[in-house]
Amino acid sequence: MPVDFMARALELAAQALGSTSPNPAVGAVVVKDGRIVGEGYTQPPGQAHAEVVALRQAGAHARGATLYVTLEPCSHHGRTPPCVAAIIEAGVREVRFSFVDPNPLVNGNGGRQLEAAGVRVTEGEGAKASRKLTEAYCKFITTRLPFVTAKFAASLDGKIAARGGDSRWITGEAARREAHRLRAMSDVVMVGVGTVLTDDPQLTARDAQDAPLPRQPLRVVVDSQGRTLPSARLLREPGAALVAHARAPQERLRALQTAGAELVEACGEDGRVDLRRLLTLLGERQVTSVLAEGGGALLGSLFDGGLVDKVAAFIAPVVIGGTGATPAVGGKGAETIAQALRLTGVEVRKVGLDVLISGYANRRE
Amino acid sequence: MPVDFMARALELAAQALGSTSPNPAVGAVVVKDGRIVGEGYTQPPGQAHAEVVALRQAGAHARGATLYVTLEPCSHHGRTPPCVAAIIEAGVREVRFSFVDPNPLVNGNGGRQLEAAGVRVTEGEGAKASRKLTEAYCKFITTRLPFVTAKFAASLDGKIAARGGDSRWITGEAARREAHRLRAMSDVVMVGVGTVLTDDPQLTARDAQDAPLPRQPLRVVVDSQGRTLPSARLLREPGAALVAHARAPQERLRALQTAGAELVEACGEDGRVDLRRLLTLLGERQVTSVLAEGGGALLGSLFDGGLVDKVAAFIAPVVIGGTGATPAVGGKGAETIAQALRLTGVEVRKVGLDVLISGYANRRE
Repeated sequence: MPVDFMARALELAAQALGSTSPNPAVGAVVVKDGRIVGEGYTQPPGQAHAEVVALRQAGAHARGATLYVTLEPCSHHGRTPPCVAAIIEAGVREVRFSFVDPNPLVNGNGGRQLEAAGVRVTEGEGAKASRKLTEAYCKFITTRLPFVTAKFAASLDGKIAARGGDSRWITGEAARREAHRLRAMSDVVMVGVGTVLTDDPQLTARDAQDAPLPRQPLRVVVDSQGRTLPSARLLREPGAALVAHARAPQERLRALQTAGAELVEACGEDGRVDLRRLLTLLGERQVTSVLAEGGGALLGSLFDGGLVDKVAAFIAPVVIGGTGATPAVGGKGAETIAQALRLTGVEVRKVGLDVLISGYANRRE
Repeated sequence: MPVDFMARALELAAQALGSTSPNPAVGAVVVKDGRIVGEGYTQPPGQAHAEVVALRQAGAHARGATLYVTLEPCSHHGRTPPCVAAIIEAGVREVRFSFVDPNPLVNGNGGRQLEAAGVRVTEGEGAKASRKLTEAYCKFITTRLPFVTAKFAASLDGKIAARGGDSRWITGEAARREAHRLRAMSDVVMVGVGTVLTDDPQLTARDAQDAPLPRQPLRVVVDSQGRTLPSARLLREPGAALVAHARAPQERLRALQTAGAELVEACGEDGRVDLRRLLTLLGERQVTSVLAEGGGALLGSLFDGGLVDKVAAFIAPVVIGGTGATPAVGGKGAETIAQALRLTGVEVRKVGLDVLISGYANRRE
């Protein structure tokens, strides 16, 4: 039975998830005479790309070998020299990559330069899986806007809090653990000020022992009037916190700054935070992915603005009920069902006693 | 490989679902020398029970045979003579039944009478599956109240209509087909007057060609003030319709009666329909199962009153959003998450592009 080397490269790519931003998570395998002689995945920014790690491991065995890589090798000088040059120099005979790097600086150039140097090039193996692993990168690199995942944990009837305001815990341990995994893979975790005032969350990515992970996403509070309390927990946790406001009162801003918050103004015409503008500002800071965790008002505004790329809904088999309970998605909402957002590429998975339903928003397939 | 005769009996029982009320759906298999010599399932009320059908088919082969049956054989004269007598008379040597009939008139008497007549009796095989097939009967026969299933078709964020009131269609064809199957298995389909005024539903059980099935559940509208229009479609469809009111104006009631509606008064202390009283009245009419289809106000009241036994939530991978959209479950709701209704025995199943999440409310396991 032939070994599926691309599947191995995809496994390696998955290991890089969450540590490569703004670079994509890529895996690479060097194969000589049917055996793997080198493996690698993207190292943190500024360090080696997957291909280079794998080629170094292969050493002299790379000559005449086949390189399996989950993304077209880069052809440009970024923080590191182009991978294409390293591949040619190593004497690789054939490169099989999953899909063309949508980065306008690459976008087929990598493949063309390899072919021009006499390397055989094929494309397409593992494309679907690799695109998924790099979905945030693919959006960011083509639009300079981060990929936005709207995440919520709701009851079967779509509530994220009971009428008394209580929200802990609707979903179970396993779902909360999975939510921390999503945080760990995001550059930014975003919440509305309502959530901060009601729940005072830590918003850190934590491990199974509830200890904060070494790399923390940037915590962003959407807070038009600067109502976040300087004593908020998210300002004291490991990692950085940013309050996005809309010309909030100066004394509040000063107090937040003193408490350690970074401030960003993104005022819209209605005097509230303009979320598209905020996302643009985050994109300029190389933020490729945002996990928007709520509450209902923030998610509502993101959906209303057509700013959501993916939805991750943890649904608990619980009925909360109540016209006064908090809905998972507020805002203006769709006028008709035809105008509602129908997700594509939907996946349904049990997570403990809960169900995770995820799918894509803006993708036209 | 030994044949699983009880599994066959359960298959037969499933075929009776929806046509036996107020009797339970039961299946029976007569086995002689390792071969099936008779099969049967419960016939419509007043006609033969499963055991009798199977014994008739077995004829003389029943002598010395083993009878597999998914419920304890009845020992009392109801609409038909007791099955126990028929079993003894047929000369059956052994009876294997799934679980004791909770009907206070049986409740172990069937098994005891068989044993007293020298028949070997064992109990327990297929109990879980059989209990599920007869869940409505088991509640009804012990409480004289119907088994209430709260069914809704909502978006991922728990809305059953967009802010403009539009609700068609949130879920897809397959989910709607499954909902008709649920109707066909229920004695009553119940809705609130809001749903009637907004959607003017037919509320019939229809087949894949959208033709009404021969047996229709009773359609019940909870309508305190008698606001259902005499022109409502549900008053003109095959089968019967009942309007449950709370001292509604006489002229409205007369118009509804003229339009073919049966009327029932079930006035609560607050001047609105008392749902527990209505369920009691329905139980007195031998209604064993109610499928409550909404809207949010009716389901909210049912949940608030602790009157729901099972939840069947069809969740579409759609985000509707909007603080003004209609929530699947209204009413007062839980004050805290701890007080919310956590379902047990939860099942998750994809139905077309949608997800059906179902579970039990009042069952203590």
